[in-house]
This record gives sequence, structure tokens and C-alpha cells, in this order.
Amino acid sequence: MAKRVLVIGCGLIGTSFALALRKTFGGQLEVDGVEPHPDHREALRTAGVFRAVYDRLPPAGPSPRYDWAVLAVPVDKAAEMVPAASALAHWVMDVCSLKGPVCAAAREAGVAARFAPTHPMAGKAMGGPSAAEASLFAGQVWLVVEGWPAVSAVLPLLRATGAVIQPVASEREHDLAMAAVSHAIHLVSGAAMLAFHDAEKAAGAGGRWAAWTGPGFRDVTRLAGSPAGFWVATLLANREAVAAQLERVSARLGEFAAALQTGDAGRLASLLESARAVSEAWRRDRDRALSSGEP
Amino acid sequence: MAKRVLVIGCGLIGTSFALALRKTFGGQLEVDGVEPHPDHREALRTAGVFRAVYDRLPPAGPSPRYDWAVLAVPVDKAAEMVPAASALAHWVMDVCSLKGPVCAAAREAGVAARFAPTHPMAGKAMGGPSAAEASLFAGQVWLVVEGWPAVSAVLPLLRATGAVIQPVASEREHDLAMAAVSHAIHLVSGAAMLAFHDAEKAAGAGGRWAAWTGPGFRDVTRLAGSPAGFWVATLLANREAVAAQLERVSARLGEFAAALQTGDAGRLASLLESARAVSEAWRRDRDRALSSGEP
Repeated sequence: MAKRVLVIGCGLIGTSFALALRKTFGGQLEVDGVEPHPDHREALRTAGVFRAVYDRLPPAGPSPRYDWAVLAVPVDKAAEMVPAASALAHWVMDVCSLKGPVCAAAREAGVAARFAPTHPMAGKAMGGPSAAEASLFAGQVWLVVEGWPAVSAVLPLLRATGAVIQPVASEREHDLAMAAVSHAIHLVSGAAMLAFHDAEKAAGAGGRWAAWTGPGFRDVTRLAGSPAGFWVATLLANREAVAAQLERVSARLGEFAAALQTGDAGRLASLLESARAVSEAWRRDRDRALSSGEP
Repeated sequence: MAKRVLVIGCGLIGTSFALALRKTFGGQLEVDGVEPHPDHREALRTAGVFRAVYDRLPPAGPSPRYDWAVLAVPVDKAAEMVPAASALAHWVMDVCSLKGPVCAAAREAGVAARFAPTHPMAGKAMGGPSAAEASLFAGQVWLVVEGWPAVSAVLPLLRATGAVIQPVASEREHDLAMAAVSHAIHLVSGAAMLAFHDAEKAAGAGGRWAAWTGPGFRDVTRLAGSPAGFWVATLLANREAVAAQLERVSARLGEFAAALQTGDAGRLASLLESARAVSEAWRRDRDRALSSGEP
């Protein structure tokens, strides 16, 4: 059982993970943090989640000071920090929403045997340590990439959060899937919002249409309201898969448009019916996987 | 003040409207219904909302038997029934989600002076009279088309539902706006769902990715789960505007794809930032219009 954990990056995810570990393991586990942002450090000191919070990585000694280092920083930073983290801890895990770049970094650093690639599918509109909660991951999916030996060692820590652990065959499948279920979905939401604005402008409606939107519009465009910051690095790091997925969405939109333009009621009905059937299958597959529990 | 109302089509919207009128006006108002579906009629008889429920339009007498006829049937049927409804009632209103076809029918029948085109923006996943509620419209937007004299006569009935009444300049603007805020949004949701399935199939993932979807995916694809029935007639009746809006969405998706393909972080950030700004403006315009109250 791990005794000492270093969380590198004490934002929403890193701090929520630390809170969940403290809640489950109490005094059996010491959790330190690394957080460069002074305001975040101040908030963390008051909250008392971490034993110590450093402003940068502590110097590596002759042997690893921690059982686990947790990389909870954006994917480009996490890939950079793999070698330093693996000098500080016996095992290293990350929580990034893309797995290709960090897995490549672990292989390149020769620490693949000690590296666990994971991805908790949880979040909140507000980021930062003040929004952190011990229950953030409870009942949510936490993906782990198969074929990395350190994954079995990390499972007790992930289980402590109450997350539903789901295996992914490879980092490549993970990143392809994320393009379809998250990254392209984000851009579809943004494109729908921008196109609403384009239409209002073309009609000279100047803000009048906003009040005529219902819950469907609100849901489809919700993600467009997120700050751009986090997304740019993630989308660019997965750009081939995301661009391919946008092509699939555009092709489907083109099929709907063609059915409308030719007034083909049968084709339109059949496309809508396919979408409904896929929606039903998705819900059934999801519920089955989530109720069947852990790998 | 109206004393006798005939609701033509006693589904979710028609029956909820009748319930809201009965709740506000009690015995001052008699509400009859027309509902061809025998199961619906049986449900309505038990519920006792309507004084009488006919299986078809009652025969027209020498003078109108009702103050108001309410066309609460799909838009193609409503347009057909305008002449018959205006023989039965002094005033006619409709609650269709498209205004062009019914407004044209009212002009053609020579009853424009007695016709109020309206559109309550309320609904529920479940249809039918059993799902009806007196509070369905409370706090929701009810659009009325300006320039139709009967609209001022219908306002007391609409206000009785607790809806927030919003004017629209013309039936053309209404239908253009609905293409952007509702009809194309529905197809975007369907296209995103179909493209998810296409990607899973291309990767040979066979249902595995379903469990890896989060709240963003669920919200963007939610509308894809609706039955096709109602949508085919509505989308076809508004097909030019909907196809034009799909082109706008595709153009914006193309801009995102180009920024990804060229790895242009600045362009990607600026598109995401525009979407965020439009989202914020939409929310502000909506809240301002809804809090400023009635026309």
C-alpha cells in the first residue's frame, strides 16, 4: 500500500484526488503537492489538504521519496515532466485527457514499467483548488490504458475515489475515442453557437432571437461557453483525429441538407430514425458497461 | 372576455392549454375539445378537463358557436383546418412551431382579421394528453406574430397560462429564427450522434466507447433521441431556412477543421473565444428580454 503521494498540479482534478485519498486513507497516507500559482498555494494552505505544498518540484534524492507521483497538469506539461516525476517517485501516473503524448514520453524516458496512464472523466464548470471536492470522481468513469504494468498498482488509489474504472485497449484507441466523444463534440457545440450568431446577423435581428431559444438550444450550445484556454492544447495535440471526426459530422450534416433540399421525406425520416436508434444503442451500451463494474 | 373555447387537437399542448385556462378562469369559461384518437378521448373523459370531447369538428351553425378555436395539431393539418375552424369560432389561434403555412392559409381563407398566429415554446419528452399539465407554459416563452389584429384579443388567454409573451415581427422572421434556434439544432444533434457511431464503427470499437462519454456528449446528442415523427413535417415545411442554417454550421465546422489541419493555435483560440463571447451575449440578451416582460 502506498504511503507517500506527490500531486503535481493542484488544480480541480489534482486537489479533488488528494481530498478523496485523504478521505479514504486518512493518516495512513501522506499527500504532498506541487503548485506554482501563489493564489492556489494560499488557498491550499488554508484548506489543509496537503501535508506540504511546494512551488516547484522538490529536488530528487538518491532514491525516490514518494511511492506515487500524480501528474495533474495539462498534457503538454505532463509529457515534459515525466522524467523528473519518475526521479521523485517509484510509480508515476497521469490524469490527462489525452494519452498519446504522455505514453510516448514515458517510453522515451525508459520508465514505461513504472508509468500508469489514466484519465478521470470528471470536471466542473469552475476550475481551481477551491472548486475541488472529495466526491468529484464518485460514480464517474476513470479510464486506464491496458498493457501498462503500473496500472494494476494504481487501482487501489483510483478505487478509493469511488470512480467506475474502465479499461481502454491502447493510448491510440483512447485518443481516437476522445476525438469522437469529447473534442469534436466541443467544436460542434461551438460551431452551432457561432452559426446562430451568423443567422441572427444575416437577418438583422440584433439579439432579438436569444429569448426564443429553448432547452434543446441551451444543451447543444452549452460547451461553447467554456473558456478556450485548456482546449487549444488538447485539440492541437489530437488534431488529426479531431479533424477526421469533424469530417464525419459534416458528412452527416450534408446528408440531412440533401434530404431537405430534395424534399425527400422518406430519406429525412430514415436519417432521423437512424440517429434515434444510435442514441438508444449508446444509452444501452453505456448503462451495461457502467453496471458491469470493474475490469 | 371569451366564454367558449374549442381546442382542436387534445395532445400535450392543447390539453395543457385547456388545463391552464380552466385553472385561471374556472366556471367562467367553457372549454370543448376535438380529438380523433379514441385512446386520447378516453383519457380526456376520465380527466374531466373538457366539457365535451368530439371525435371530429362539430358542424358549423349559422353563427360561430365559440369565441375561440385553438388549432393545436401539426402545422400541415392546422393550415388545412383554418377555414373550418373559422366557421366555428369568432376568433382562431394556432400553436404551431412554424408560422408561414398557417398565416398563408388564414390570408387565403380571408380570415386574417380574426386569426392570431402564436407559438408556445414549451414541451416535454412525453407527448399526449396524459402528460399535460396546467403549469406547462408557466415562465416559458410564448411567441406572437405582430401585425395580426387578433393577437391583442388572445393575450388575456395566453397570460392566463403564466407564459412570458414575446412578439415576433413577422411569420417569416419567426420561421427563420426557428431554423436557427430549433430545427437545425435538432439536426446538429442527430449528426453528432450518427458521427459518433461512424467513428466507433471505423475503429472497430463495437459499443465500447459508449461508457466513455460524459455530460457534454449527453447534452449535445440529447435531441437525437427524439422520435422522428413530428420532425419530418416541420423540417420539410421550413426546409430552405433549415438547409441554409446547416450550411452556416458546416462553414463554421470547416473553419475549426482548417485551424486544426494547419496547427494554427492562434486561429483555433480565436474561434473558441468567439464562440464563448457569442454564448455570453446570447445568455445576456435572453435574460434581458425575459426580465423586461410583456410587449
